[in-house]
Amino acid sequence: MREFKQLTPYRKALEMMLNDIKEIEETEELPLDETLGRVLAEDIESPIDLPPFDRSAVDGYAVRAEDTFQAREYSPVELEVIDEITAGMESKKEVTNGKAVKLMTGNKMPKSANAVIEQEKVKKEGNKIYVLRPVAPGQNVAFKGEDVKKGEVVLKKGQILRPQDLGLLKGIGIKRITVKRKPKVGIIVTGDELIEEPDEEALNRGKILESNSVMLKGLVRQYFGEPVFYGVIPDNEELIGRAIEKAKRECDLVLITGGSAFGEKDYAHKFVKLLFHGCSNKPGRPIGYGETIFVMSGYPVAVFAQFHLYIKYALAKLAGANYKPMKVKARLKEKVPSSLGRHEFVKVYYEDGKAYPIRKKGSGIISALVGSNGYIEVPEDSEGYKEGEEVWVTLY
Amino acid sequence: MREFKQLTPYRKALEMMLNDIKEIEETEELPLDETLGRVLAEDIESPIDLPPFDRSAVDGYAVRAEDTFQAREYSPVELEVIDEITAGMESKKEVTNGKAVKLMTGNKMPKSANAVIEQEKVKKEGNKIYVLRPVAPGQNVAFKGEDVKKGEVVLKKGQILRPQDLGLLKGIGIKRITVKRKPKVGIIVTGDELIEEPDEEALNRGKILESNSVMLKGLVRQYFGEPVFYGVIPDNEELIGRAIEKAKRECDLVLITGGSAFGEKDYAHKFVKLLFHGCSNKPGRPIGYGETIFVMSGYPVAVFAQFHLYIKYALAKLAGANYKPMKVKARLKEKVPSSLGRHEFVKVYYEDGKAYPIRKKGSGIISALVGSNGYIEVPEDSEGYKEGEEVWVTLY
Repeated sequence: MREFKQLTPYRKALEMMLNDIKEIEETEELPLDETLGRVLAEDIESPIDLPPFDRSAVDGYAVRAEDTFQAREYSPVELEVIDEITAGMESKKEVTNGKAVKLMTGNKMPKSANAVIEQEKVKKEGNKIYVLRPVAPGQNVAFKGEDVKKGEVVLKKGQILRPQDLGLLKGIGIKRITVKRKPKVGIIVTGDELIEEPDEEALNRGKILESNSVMLKGLVRQYFGEPVFYGVIPDNEELIGRAIEKAKRECDLVLITGGSAFGEKDYAHKFVKLLFHGCSNKPGRPIGYGETIFVMSGYPVAVFAQFHLYIKYALAKLAGANYKPMKVKARLKEKVPSSLGRHEFVKVYYEDGKAYPIRKKGSGIISALVGSNGYIEVPEDSEGYKEGEEVWVTLY
Repeated sequence: MREFKQLTPYRKALEMMLNDIKEIEETEELPLDETLGRVLAEDIESPIDLPPFDRSAVDGYAVRAEDTFQAREYSPVELEVIDEITAGMESKKEVTNGKAVKLMTGNKMPKSANAVIEQEKVKKEGNKIYVLRPVAPGQNVAFKGEDVKKGEVVLKKGQILRPQDLGLLKGIGIKRITVKRKPKVGIIVTGDELIEEPDEEALNRGKILESNSVMLKGLVRQYFGEPVFYGVIPDNEELIGRAIEKAKRECDLVLITGGSAFGEKDYAHKFVKLLFHGCSNKPGRPIGYGETIFVMSGYPVAVFAQFHLYIKYALAKLAGANYKPMKVKARLKEKVPSSLGRHEFVKVYYEDGKAYPIRKKGSGIISALVGSNGYIEVPEDSEGYKEGEEVWVTLY
C-alpha cells in the first residue's frame, strides 16, 4: 500500500478538472411549465414591448395634464367624463381639452390623454369630475416598453430558471423554450463492507449500511443533474471495471465512491487515467479525477465535502449553468482551527448572521452533516479563524 | 367603487391567517429515494448505534495502547502481526500483549485491542511491526454509538428532507419513511384583459398576456405544494363563483389572482368570507384571506410579493414544515426610501455581502423580479434605509 506522494492544491485541482469538462451540447425544447430549475440554452429576446402600449398605472381618469395645471382644492377644475372602460377594454374616444375617460389599472391610454388622476383624488358628480390638484404629464402612466423593450435580451443562456423567470417569459408571449439536456451522472458505490438491508448479525460482523447512493442521488438532483445508479459493487477488480465501463458509456459524468485510496482493494483508479489523485482538501483528500470520472472516498462525510468542493462545479459546467454558490457573511460562534497545507471544509449551522461550527469530528460522522446547512472553507495558508471573526459561509 | 376603509397591519394579518390555517393530517409512506424536499411526518429514532461497533478510523494496526507507551524512534517496540483483514471483514483473533492486527478504516476493532496505529507510522518487516511512537488508549478508534445512539431522535417531524438527511436515514437502516401529503394549491387567474396566446392585434387593443399561472405554479412547487390550475376565468360573477367552489372542494389552499380590489368586476371577495382584506404591505395591498382562500392582486409583481409575504408561510404551516426563510446580512448599495405606515417589500440583488435595490418601480414591472434574488422588508414605522446601512435580505 502506498500513500499519496504529493497532494495537488485544491484550487489547482478544481481548475484542472473544470478545464477538462466540456459543456453538454444537446438541448431540448419544453413547455414553459416543465422547465423550473432547468438551464436556459439560449438568450431570449423579447418579441414584444412590455407594456405593449402606454397604459394606466392606476384606477382613475385619463386626462390632458395641462387641463389640471390650475386645479386647486378651493378652485377645482371641471372635466367631462366622455367614456368609461373596464379591464381589457379600449376606449375609442379622444381626450380633447376639458374631457376625461374613466379607466382601470392596465387599460390602454386613450388617444391624446397624457396623464391619469387617481379616482380617489377627484370629486365625481354625474358625468363631471372635479380635479383638486394638478397632475404632471406622464403621471400614473406606464409607457410602452418601459418594462421590457422589443428585441431586448430578457434572460441569458445559462440562466437557472426560477418561477419569476417563467412568469416573465409567459408575459412576453413565449410558451416553449430550449433548455440544456440534464447531465446524466452515473453513481457507482464500491466496498465489500457495505450491505443494503439492515441486518444486525452482519453489522456485528463489521458490515456497514450503505448510504452514499441515496445522498449522491439527491445532491445530483439538487445540482442540475439526473442520477443513474449502477449499484453497490463488491471490491472485485473485474466487476468494478465493468461497471465503470458501462457508466462511462452511458453518462456524462461518473462518481465512484470507495476505493479511491491505494489499498490493495482500491481498484477504481486502475481503470481511469487520472489528471490528479490526492488533493489538499480535508476531508476527502483521496479524490481523483480524469476522463469525466471522479474516484471518491467511501465515507459519507468525505463524499459530501468532495461533492461541494468539486462535483457541483463540474455539474454546473456540464449543464452550462450560470451558477455561483450563495455566500453569506457570518459571525463565528466558536473558533475553527485548521491545519496549514490543507484546504478545510468545515460544516456549520448558519442562522441570522451567526455560524456555529459543527463540532463532531471524523469523516464517519454523518450526523454532523444533518446538523449543518453550510460550510466555511479554510485555505491552505490559514491556520483557521477565531471566535467572533466574520467569515463567509457557503449555503448548501 | 369603494376603497379599503382601513388597512390591516401586515404582521397582524399574517398572524390571523396563520392562526386560521391548520396543518394537513394525511401522510404517505414512500421509499427514501422519492422523498427529497418532502416534509417528514414523524420523529425518527435510530434503530441502531452508529457505528454499530467500535471501529478503526484509519488504515493501520490495532494494538493494546499500553504496549506502545515505551516506544521511541531510537528504541521501537516490536509487535507481532497475528491477522490481517480487509474492508467488511472481522478478525476472530484476540489482540493480547505484544500482538497487533492489520486492519482498514471502518473495520471492527478486534477483541482486547484499544487503539490503532496509522500504517504510515510503523516499520514493517515480515510479520513484525516496529512502533516508533506511543498511542493513547482510544486513539484512532470510532466508538460504538459515537455518531448516533440507538433510540436517539436523528430527525424531527417537520424536517424538510435534504440529501444528507436521506443519507443518514439509509445509514441507520431506514428505507421507507412517512412524509406529509403535499398541500394541493388551487390557482385561479381572473381578468377580462388577459389572453393566453400572443396576438399582436389583441395586445394593441389593450389585452395583456397572462403570466401569473406559470409563476405561481413554480412558486407553489418551490414551497412544499402541488399546484392545481383552474384556468384563466373572465370577469364573470357566475364563472368565478363556480371556479372558487370547485377549487375549494378539491384543494387545501386556493389562490385567486385579479379582482381583489373593489372594482365593479372584482367578484372574488363576494364568494369568500374574508378575515382581512386590504393590508399595509406594499406592493400587494389589496390582499384578502379567509376560508383557506387568498384573493390576490392581478399584477405579477404584487402577486410575487404577496406570495413571499403570506403564502409561503401558509404553505409551510399546511405542510407541517419546519421552515424559516434564509436571512442574510448585506451592505445596502443604494438608499431605500419607504413610506411610513407601509410594510414595504423591496426587491434586491444580493451578492457577496452587498444588496443592490432593484430600481424599476410599479407593480407591472416584471423585469424587476427577474433581476432580483431576494428582498428587504421595511416595516410600517421605518422611513427606509440609507446607502451603506447593513440590512437583512431574505433570499428567494
